[in-house]
Amino acid sequence: MTRQMKLGAFLWATGHHIAAWRHPKAHVTAGIDIDHYIRLARTAEAAKFDMVFCEDAAGLREANVGIASQTSRSIGFEPISLLSALAVRTSRIGLVSTASTSYNEPYGLARTFLSLDQLSGGRAGWNLVTSASPIEAANFGATGLKPHADRYERAREFAEVVTGLWQGGSFHGHDGQSFSVRDPLDLPRSPQGAPVMVQAGASDVGRDLAARTADVVFTAAQTFEEAKAFYHDLKGRMAAYGREPDDIKIMPGVAPVVAATEAEAQEKHEELQELIPDDVGVALLSSYLSISDLWRYPIDGPMPELPETEGMKSRQALVVEQSRRDGLSIRQLARHFAGARGHWRIVGTPAQVADELQARFEGGGADGFNIMPSYFPGELDAFCDLVVPELQRRGLFRREYHGSTLREHLGLKQPA
Amino acid sequence: MTRQMKLGAFLWATGHHIAAWRHPKAHVTAGIDIDHYIRLARTAEAAKFDMVFCEDAAGLREANVGIASQTSRSIGFEPISLLSALAVRTSRIGLVSTASTSYNEPYGLARTFLSLDQLSGGRAGWNLVTSASPIEAANFGATGLKPHADRYERAREFAEVVTGLWQGGSFHGHDGQSFSVRDPLDLPRSPQGAPVMVQAGASDVGRDLAARTADVVFTAAQTFEEAKAFYHDLKGRMAAYGREPDDIKIMPGVAPVVAATEAEAQEKHEELQELIPDDVGVALLSSYLSISDLWRYPIDGPMPELPETEGMKSRQALVVEQSRRDGLSIRQLARHFAGARGHWRIVGTPAQVADELQARFEGGGADGFNIMPSYFPGELDAFCDLVVPELQRRGLFRREYHGSTLREHLGLKQPA
Repeated sequence: MTRQMKLGAFLWATGHHIAAWRHPKAHVTAGIDIDHYIRLARTAEAAKFDMVFCEDAAGLREANVGIASQTSRSIGFEPISLLSALAVRTSRIGLVSTASTSYNEPYGLARTFLSLDQLSGGRAGWNLVTSASPIEAANFGATGLKPHADRYERAREFAEVVTGLWQGGSFHGHDGQSFSVRDPLDLPRSPQGAPVMVQAGASDVGRDLAARTADVVFTAAQTFEEAKAFYHDLKGRMAAYGREPDDIKIMPGVAPVVAATEAEAQEKHEELQELIPDDVGVALLSSYLSISDLWRYPIDGPMPELPETEGMKSRQALVVEQSRRDGLSIRQLARHFAGARGHWRIVGTPAQVADELQARFEGGGADGFNIMPSYFPGELDAFCDLVVPELQRRGLFRREYHGSTLREHLGLKQPA
Repeated sequence: MTRQMKLGAFLWATGHHIAAWRHPKAHVTAGIDIDHYIRLARTAEAAKFDMVFCEDAAGLREANVGIASQTSRSIGFEPISLLSALAVRTSRIGLVSTASTSYNEPYGLARTFLSLDQLSGGRAGWNLVTSASPIEAANFGATGLKPHADRYERAREFAEVVTGLWQGGSFHGHDGQSFSVRDPLDLPRSPQGAPVMVQAGASDVGRDLAARTADVVFTAAQTFEEAKAFYHDLKGRMAAYGREPDDIKIMPGVAPVVAATEAEAQEKHEELQELIPDDVGVALLSSYLSISDLWRYPIDGPMPELPETEGMKSRQALVVEQSRRDGLSIRQLARHFAGARGHWRIVGTPAQVADELQARFEGGGADGFNIMPSYFPGELDAFCDLVVPELQRRGLFRREYHGSTLREHLGLKQPA
């Protein structure tokens, strides 16, 4: 069979675009409307998506409460409870949630995800994050963010304990640097062997952790070159851990804006971009970069040099490179960046969007994509109605599910 | 309106009786069958129960894995994910889960319960436990159980932070002995003001914490005198915290075995009791009492004196008192105790069961009951089909829900 792409749908309250909540068609209280999420998950399932995916942070999303109230996800369900509810209102689609290795214990987290996996008949996945935001740290009694390397060392051990616990009866305890766990879980092994392990860290140490333990990697790649370089690099690291390249599915984020004609798509896009206030754009860019004084620089001047922080190393590199490449002012960069939150944006007709996805998929830049609709439900509907059939016609995406578990959808081996 | 009793249904895999899994009608893999739980929750909802309730421990339930495999809840869903699923398959019944103050952080726990509360339209409750089992401690890197007083001091501060966070925008941070939390949650206030706070600790310090913070108290009281003494004591402590007696609903556990005739009920009960192996009974009694060497004593001799431990103080006092009162041997006590796990058992006709409940309810021993059916679904069905209509005829229990939130069912004030 021809290789087919994997598709995830990013669920994010009113929509992924930073100004989605200001869109005239937006559902402003979507973040706590379970019927809204059920509808989105069922739409993605009807389109045969591999999974829905929830990002997460245990805290307000932005340091500045005023700014937080002006973004499209200032409130919303805790994602594991959300996905547990979706588990019994869907039947085939995978359910992936983010959870932090810094503010959880491996026993509790392994148990909750395995419970979700059992609830859903083998459709759960865990997106491992180490939590780079000092905003979250302040809600967990930490006096500051732990150094990047320490967070990743804890994450590595955390993942080892969790995957051990997921192996069931063959778990014989763990006594390590950060964690000590004695008993197996009080749950049998997953119908898919173990929940799917997702990662998104793009730093050097993050890539190594992914090469060692991940089944799926989410990533942000604006250009084809970045996407290919990342793909090549990550797959190349896997042999060192005795794994084959196909054991990880690399799924970059894509923020598509699609309409029947290119002009219509452009118009939809502009309509959203114009809704981004400058202060929100700059504040968001500052928050993404973990720097607090970006507002001090002239908004129409160039980006300043960034000091090295313990936050998002890979994200900072991405932004600085982009500002140099395109010669963008802070205002331009903020607006460009804020809209799609740093992800690849494709604006066009169904055929144009499919062309772009196909090129990256076939050109060694991706095994699939994490679709980030600008606003819900409109842009998810548009992608499912317009782009998915086009991908299916080209033989690039399934017309029916062939398995019942997330691992089966993704074509992943069951863990031994 | 006449005062009416509150009813909770205790959800526990194959059933509350320790040998339920051996019953010929038992559903052995019930603990991971979501359809089983949906059926139970809907049965309780159709009978207008106030809530379903899940006990929990983050670890195997018994220290001895061999024994664990012989009890009726060796495997099962993590309860918050379970209740999140039930939230979207029920519409009125309250959803209460146990969670530990020792192995969670207040920010994460407050957020998850508020998320469940939003998912369910204001039907969530948190049963606060401090986790007295060294089995759990060993899964969270602890070298031993913390002293009882320390656990409760942490629990008191934990509850303070959680209730603060549930107040939403008026939360201005917390900087205390065990916890420091900066931001409010990223969720709006609950439709019922805040999730319902449930507690079950019966020690002196546990009662004080309940008097200060609980909305509902679960308790184990074998005799009417114990029930009245506990009820009187707890309600008496509330004034010191500026609360009125009716601000807490005291709901002792009841393990009813009901049938059309008394002989039939007795026969059903005996059938279950005979399924308890002696070694399981003794091991379970040992585990409940946090003592490891009970098996060394002659099984037909009296209970030995118990050393004071950091585990379950109130539970130990209960068992020792019972053994003295009834002159029971270890074997007899183990069997008696193991069957209903230390709770009040009523065996009889619908009228007899209703009489007993009515007497305690009207005699100052309870505001309602936490019903613990021996095995599922049979004994929950029997209670709903036979006892609930009898209570309704007597005007002691609602025929319809009048509100939509758990607080409304329970007749509790919304927090300010």
